[in-house]
Amino acid sequence: MSRDISIPELLQKKKNGDQLTSEEIHLFIQSVVTGMAQDCQIGAMLMAMYLKGLTDQETVSLTTAMVHSGDQLSWNPEWKDLLVDKHSTGGCGDKISLVLAPALAACGFKVPMISGRGLEHTGGTLDKLESIPGFCVQLLEKEMQSALETAGCFIAGPTATLAPADKELYKRRDVTATVDSIPLCVASIISKKVAEGTKTLVMDVKVGEAAFFKSEDEARTLASKLIKVSAGLGVQTRVALTNMDSPIGRAVGNSLEVAEAIDCLKGKGPHDVVELVATLGGIVLEMKGHAKTLKEGKETVLNVLNSGEALEKFRLMLICQGVAKEVATALCQGDMCSVLPSVPPDHITITKAYSSGTITKVDALKVAKAVWKLGAGRSKADEPIDHRVGIRLLRMQGEKVKEGDGLIEIYHNSPQLNADIHRQLEEAILISDNPNGMEHLLIIDIIRD
Amino acid sequence: MSRDISIPELLQKKKNGDQLTSEEIHLFIQSVVTGMAQDCQIGAMLMAMYLKGLTDQETVSLTTAMVHSGDQLSWNPEWKDLLVDKHSTGGCGDKISLVLAPALAACGFKVPMISGRGLEHTGGTLDKLESIPGFCVQLLEKEMQSALETAGCFIAGPTATLAPADKELYKRRDVTATVDSIPLCVASIISKKVAEGTKTLVMDVKVGEAAFFKSEDEARTLASKLIKVSAGLGVQTRVALTNMDSPIGRAVGNSLEVAEAIDCLKGKGPHDVVELVATLGGIVLEMKGHAKTLKEGKETVLNVLNSGEALEKFRLMLICQGVAKEVATALCQGDMCSVLPSVPPDHITITKAYSSGTITKVDALKVAKAVWKLGAGRSKADEPIDHRVGIRLLRMQGEKVKEGDGLIEIYHNSPQLNADIHRQLEEAILISDNPNGMEHLLIIDIIRD
Repeated sequence: MSRDISIPELLQKKKNGDQLTSEEIHLFIQSVVTGMAQDCQIGAMLMAMYLKGLTDQETVSLTTAMVHSGDQLSWNPEWKDLLVDKHSTGGCGDKISLVLAPALAACGFKVPMISGRGLEHTGGTLDKLESIPGFCVQLLEKEMQSALETAGCFIAGPTATLAPADKELYKRRDVTATVDSIPLCVASIISKKVAEGTKTLVMDVKVGEAAFFKSEDEARTLASKLIKVSAGLGVQTRVALTNMDSPIGRAVGNSLEVAEAIDCLKGKGPHDVVELVATLGGIVLEMKGHAKTLKEGKETVLNVLNSGEALEKFRLMLICQGVAKEVATALCQGDMCSVLPSVPPDHITITKAYSSGTITKVDALKVAKAVWKLGAGRSKADEPIDHRVGIRLLRMQGEKVKEGDGLIEIYHNSPQLNADIHRQLEEAILISDNPNGMEHLLIIDIIRD
Repeated sequence: MSRDISIPELLQKKKNGDQLTSEEIHLFIQSVVTGMAQDCQIGAMLMAMYLKGLTDQETVSLTTAMVHSGDQLSWNPEWKDLLVDKHSTGGCGDKISLVLAPALAACGFKVPMISGRGLEHTGGTLDKLESIPGFCVQLLEKEMQSALETAGCFIAGPTATLAPADKELYKRRDVTATVDSIPLCVASIISKKVAEGTKTLVMDVKVGEAAFFKSEDEARTLASKLIKVSAGLGVQTRVALTNMDSPIGRAVGNSLEVAEAIDCLKGKGPHDVVELVATLGGIVLEMKGHAKTLKEGKETVLNVLNSGEALEKFRLMLICQGVAKEVATALCQGDMCSVLPSVPPDHITITKAYSSGTITKVDALKVAKAVWKLGAGRSKADEPIDHRVGIRLLRMQGEKVKEGDGLIEIYHNSPQLNADIHRQLEEAILISDNPNGMEHLLIIDIIRD
């Protein structure tokens, strides 16, 4: 590496629209991690990368440098062809990982799922899992290894040494309006997946009002870059573009979503959650040659949900991640309500239909923001959250209702529900006499290359 | 001001190419000065401003916000129509301010010149003046007032409370490759001139290999923006575009340039230094209506140089800025060599002409870099410099030489001259049999609006 190049020279190149070499990007990332780069230089580089973009080659270099900024997890060599994972760009009520990881484990795969926490109105998988008493998201590498052996999967936070450059860049992207950069997103996602040792990845890229990417075009650009860049790092990726206008399933909020995920693992999940799990899982089975077609793959996934095999992997995963055996067993085989935290019965309010007709829309963004205000999410990293609060949709899009019917069960953390939140949730549901034109294509497309 | 707007929202607007309002720019600058803005946010904003540009209106807002980030100097109301100043974008051997400030004072003006230090190969006016024993560049406001009364001029560093936002932004621009942004340059220059209370400004915008702006187009863009933005803040500005391919005068280096400036104040300066002083001064006289034409203005300036009136203002200025009366008088009326620091005679090396012919080029950039390496400049702020070192051109462009003739006197700080520097200075002078096509248009243009 040429030591003669300084950060200002790299900034000069990038701002002029010149392509940075792999060595130069490596130098930048090393400077970020070692603290040699000044904070204002990192901010300037993020903005220059945002505005000038990164070529696929630069994005591969950035991702590689981020992987090499820390340690890579390494697994039993016998699992070489079994390591798979799923990632989602995040949405309202998105509890798919909680079901899919054990379902893939039940299909014989090893799923070393490194996941994140929620920020703003996007829920985090780790936050949801922490609703379960005793669940530990910070695992040592040997605990991860043991979970993969015993349960076939784990869902944990990144170790301190896993792609530390991503943490350093992310916290600055968050305050410099550079989060929505496609190449920076790709590098962030893929670096963690490469570092965790996955060789096969299915991505759920959400499109719609409550998604990070509002337009299908942007989502397709992301998908295409994700596939190319991950291939450059030896990871085969396929992408499902899925709709994020309505919440996924009926439950939004941490413990409420865990309950719905367990319902799904019992073969009793809402149709859209089941469809997403089966599709994303089916894509993995097809990619790995464990199914000839996507349809066959979906059937295999549905089978492990209906047979209880996926639920058993989930129970084993909970035990591997610190949950007491009796608690895990009660949660999966007994009364979930005795295990999961919940608000008292007088902290539940039900919104009513303002007229008769058909529900033509459940506004995911309004729901997500209301649930966030209830206390289910955080506005700053490390803020405590309330795992009990959230909502359950009593009626979903397309259903007929009569004026006065209950629509949304709101779980709040004090006897009196905040009036603004109440109104916001009332406004989240549209009822119309004319349900024509109401479309809800859940799986928009599957992108294979 | 809307308090609801956050720095990430401002960054979002700017990165999208939207124009920031005056309130938003004010909020940003306040956040910089109070430390509310994170360093990475400042870096990101500088890069976004660099890449997306600033409209004239935004530049006026930025300049105004920078002025209001600190205190404005205020002078005797009777001087309202007399406050003038000059600023240069900087060049090799540029000692014009040292001559022009007292010359304008001798023409009856008040010149509250706030100047800067050099960085890299660009020399700083304050560094040059500090060659003079006792000269103090940090003045209190009352000392400035007194200097304007007694001498009609001062040349000092900014007070701590003068446009502090400029200091904060500049130190980050320096490390984020955003120095060469025309709107940021304009805001930096004009904010200090407005804060010092000047109402009339002549700018020397250098163009050429050793100038900050290499191309005439860029320099013209800067000039036009300088004129518009300063008008928006109530300062009338005219710009001289001047050549910066060859060093200005014969001397480069701090005390050597002071000596040349004093020669010029005695009416014995090199023709190019005198021409620049007369032109820039003449522009001011024309702007203020003290001369009907530029030609008449130039003649007035030449008169105060030749009469000794400008020299006397210089002597008074030195005394007002801490130089002992005897030292100031010896410097101006006696033997300069007894006052100014110099290297011992055996620390002087003379380069020789490698062939006979005409000097077709003296490469200002090569000279500037060599003098910087001799120790006359600094690579980091606050580094000490050697006031004694530098060069004197024994022959200038256009002169005929014979092989073996002395060309450059090099003043170095140890008995042995560094061989690299020696070679670099030898290579700075081109001698040719064919002097055709050798042009040296000193004043390229004068831009009035």
